[in-house]
Parts: sequence; structure tokens; C-alpha cells
Amino acid sequence: MSRIASRLTELGLTLPPPMQAPGGIKLPFPWINVRGDRAIISGHGPQNPDGSLAGPFGKVGTEVTPEQAQEVARKVGLSILGSLQRELGDLDRVAGWVRVFGMVNSAPTFDRHPAVINGFSDLILAVFGPEVGRHARSAIGVAALPFNIAVEIEGEVLLRK
Amino acid sequence: MSRIASRLTELGLTLPPPMQAPGGIKLPFPWINVRGDRAIISGHGPQNPDGSLAGPFGKVGTEVTPEQAQEVARKVGLSILGSLQRELGDLDRVAGWVRVFGMVNSAPTFDRHPAVINGFSDLILAVFGPEVGRHARSAIGVAALPFNIAVEIEGEVLLRK
Amino acid sequence: MSRIASRLTELGLTLPPPMQAPGGIKLPFPWINVRGDRAIISGHGPQNPDGSLAGPFGKVGTEVTPEQAQEVARKVGLSILGSLQRELGDLDRVAGWVRVFGMVNSAPTFDRHPAVINGFSDLILAVFGPEVGRHARSAIGVAALPFNIAVEIEGEVLLRK
Repeated sequence: MSRIASRLTELGLTLPPPMQAPGGIKLPFPWINVRGDRAIISGHGPQNPDGSLAGPFGKVGTEVTPEQAQEVARKVGLSILGSLQRELGDLDRVAGWVRVFGMVNSAPTFDRHPAVINGFSDLILAVFGPEVGRHARSAIGVAALPFNIAVEIEGEVLLRK
Repeated sequence: MSRIASRLTELGLTLPPPMQAPGGIKLPFPWINVRGDRAIISGHGPQNPDGSLAGPFGKVGTEVTPEQAQEVARKVGLSILGSLQRELGDLDRVAGWVRVFGMVNSAPTFDRHPAVINGFSDLILAVFGPEVGRHARSAIGVAALPFNIAVEIEGEVLLRK
Repeated sequence: MSRIASRLTELGLTLPPPMQAPGGIKLPFPWINVRGDRAIISGHGPQNPDGSLAGPFGKVGTEVTPEQAQEVARKVGLSILGSLQRELGDLDRVAGWVRVFGMVNSAPTFDRHPAVINGFSDLILAVFGPEVGRHARSAIGVAALPFNIAVEIEGEVLLRK
């Protein structure tokens, strides 16, 4: 069993199946785009165990609490790990996290986006450890997100050669 | 004639001339920044055939319809192809699309950003095909865009060595 | 003395100390993430000389003027140079700027984001010159930023091998 798979089991984490896009929408891109030793991660949302998009939906700061949003960011992390697992076959192929861009569906007055995206970063660090899991990060508030999800995250990892 | 140039002719597509920035604004950066085998694409807007920024202008979901915005995203694609053509000399030098970041000037209640950015992705896939054209993608709604354009897109392509 | 350090002295520029995050917030990521010959720059805000976040705070276009915001963007540049200096030891290790992503905490009606982010680009070009300092760039208006700062910027530089 691979090191990261063991670690997921140890942490009691289950990765969701492929994202079930809301009815009728075409998504003409891969969730992970591997080019050379780089795996670029498309913008992911949070998923329920059945693969559908997870709530709560709406603007963080008014319709969604910061605590709920942090849990949503954690679920986005599980979605991304699921996509990486399916694309790479083995999460041990991740040599290092490069970049994480965290987008919060934000009320204009909300200003604690870093605390929200910590739900993602803490998961990645728990799973990969401080050296492989280390990532540059931005956290911002955007005006709106697809299907009114509360958090969307994209990024990049480097693969072992 | 290069493969991609032939493909553009076949599809009846004409690339716009360099962007005519609105009066007085200084843009102290290149539209494409080549570093090694990577070509980084600056944020582009849609252009009219004369190179000026194309409308409709405003927020998607209230002032601009999703259908209009999808056409704007397609025009952003043509702008980017024009910039790549001028920088690279030959679009056949593109070995593979890496990443596309689609920003929609969005009403806070609009939530179909992926359908808008499909106007871009569909163009890229039609021109480059599924292997070279394949790209990671995010689509989000932002509070405002320069000169009130409806869509801005940035990204990256890999070049043949 | 290194070339870039001399240039900073010549321009009369002083780099701020490490960012003092507002009380209680955990930021579980490095400001600069070096992976191979790439240094990825996390989203930075503007700093006061003591390391704290600098104002004016609020939405550009209503609470913060474009001129003030341009100066904020310049301060973000100094913050990033400070982080790069601490991580790399010597700014001469920067072989070339790759990408700059400029996020303006924007009133929905403000549309001169490029002029704001010029405060950053002009600094980078003054310090590194046109060849090393050349960067792809996007400038957008976001709904909200952490701690209500007026400008946040992330990016990437390539390092000499």
C-alpha cells in the first residue's frame, strides 16, 4: 500500500468519486492536466459522498458562516485528492505541492478568507507532511462561483520523474 | 503553411491585431511572456476586428446575457491566439495548453461561469485538437474587470523545444 | 554587494520585515515556495515599515482612491521583494519574472485596475530592468480581500540554476 494511501486510511479519510456536474452543463476540460512533471489542478468545488456538489451554498459572511466555509474548503481538498488519485494512480507520485489558489464566494464585507482556506491547507499538510505538502497560497473573496458553491480551489503539484 | 494556420483558415477564423488600449492607459507588460519552454499568457479581453476592446460591456447576469458572454469568451480566445501568433511566429510551436483561468465580470447572483468560459475552451479545442488543446481550467465570477469588459482570461502554454 | 541590492540602495528603497499577521490568524504556508528553479510567490499585501499590514483599507473606487491604491500596489511589491530576499538570500538569484496576478479590492463600478497594478509593475521594472523584470500580468477587481487590504498580488519568478 502506498504511503499516502496509508496516511488517508490512518486519518479516516475517504475520497469522493468523480464530480457529478449539475444537469446539462458541459465541462470540456480535465480535472487534472498533466504536462511533463507538472500536474495542474482545475478549479474544484466541494463534493458529497455521491459525487454531487456539496453545500452549504451561498456567500460566506452572510449566507454561509466562516466555520462552515472552512469545512467546505476541507471538502474541496478531498475532491482534489480524489481527482489526483484517479489521474495519477498513486498519490505517492506527488513530489511536492507548488501553488494553491483559494477563492471564497464572499460577501463584500467578509475579510477572513485565510481562515476559510486553512480548511484546505491543514488537510494537505496532514496528508503529505510539511515538505511535500508545502504550498504557496493566495486566498481571496470573489463575487460569485459556479453553481453558488462557497469555495473553489485550483493549484499545481510537481510529480516524481 | 503551418498546421494550426491551416486549421484557422478551415474554421474561417481571423485573428485580431494587437490590442488598442483605451486612451491614456499604460500597460507595462507583454501579452505573452516566454521563459524557457513556457509561454505565460497575460489577462486578455475581447477585441473588435480593429483591435479595440469589444463589448458588450458590463456585468454578466444583469447587463450582459450568458449567451453574449460566451461569445465574448470566444473573442478573448481569438485575442490570445493573435498574441501567441505574433510572439511565437507560428502557432505550431504550441506543444500543449497547460492552464486557463477564466474571469467573468459577474453579477453576485450569476452562477453559470463555466458555460461562459466554454466559449473559450471550445475554440481552443477546435483549433488545437484534444491532445494539444487540453487545459486545466477554473471559471469564476469577479467583482469588476478593466474597462468593464465582460470576460478576461489568462493562462499558459508549453512550447516545443 | 549584489547588483539588485545596489539598485535598491540607489533607488532609496527599504524592504519591510516579515509580515506581522493580524492577531490570532494562522497562515500555514510559506510566503515563497521554491520548487526546483521556480519560486512561487504567495498572495502578499502591503506592509508598514514595522511589518504590519498597511492601509488605506477598503474598496478601491469608493473608500480608497486609485492613486492611493497604486501606492498600495507599490508597497505590495516591496513586501514581495522582502520575502524573496529572505528566502533566496540574494535577489540576484532571480533569473526572470514569470507571472504577476494583481487583485484589487474593487467597488463593482471601478474599472481602472491596470493603473493600480502599475504601481507594482513599475517598481519591478525599475529594480530588475526590462529583461529580468518582464512579466505576464493580469489585473482584476475582486469582491473582498483578507483583512480588507486594498491590493493583493501573487506571482512567480524563475531562479538561476
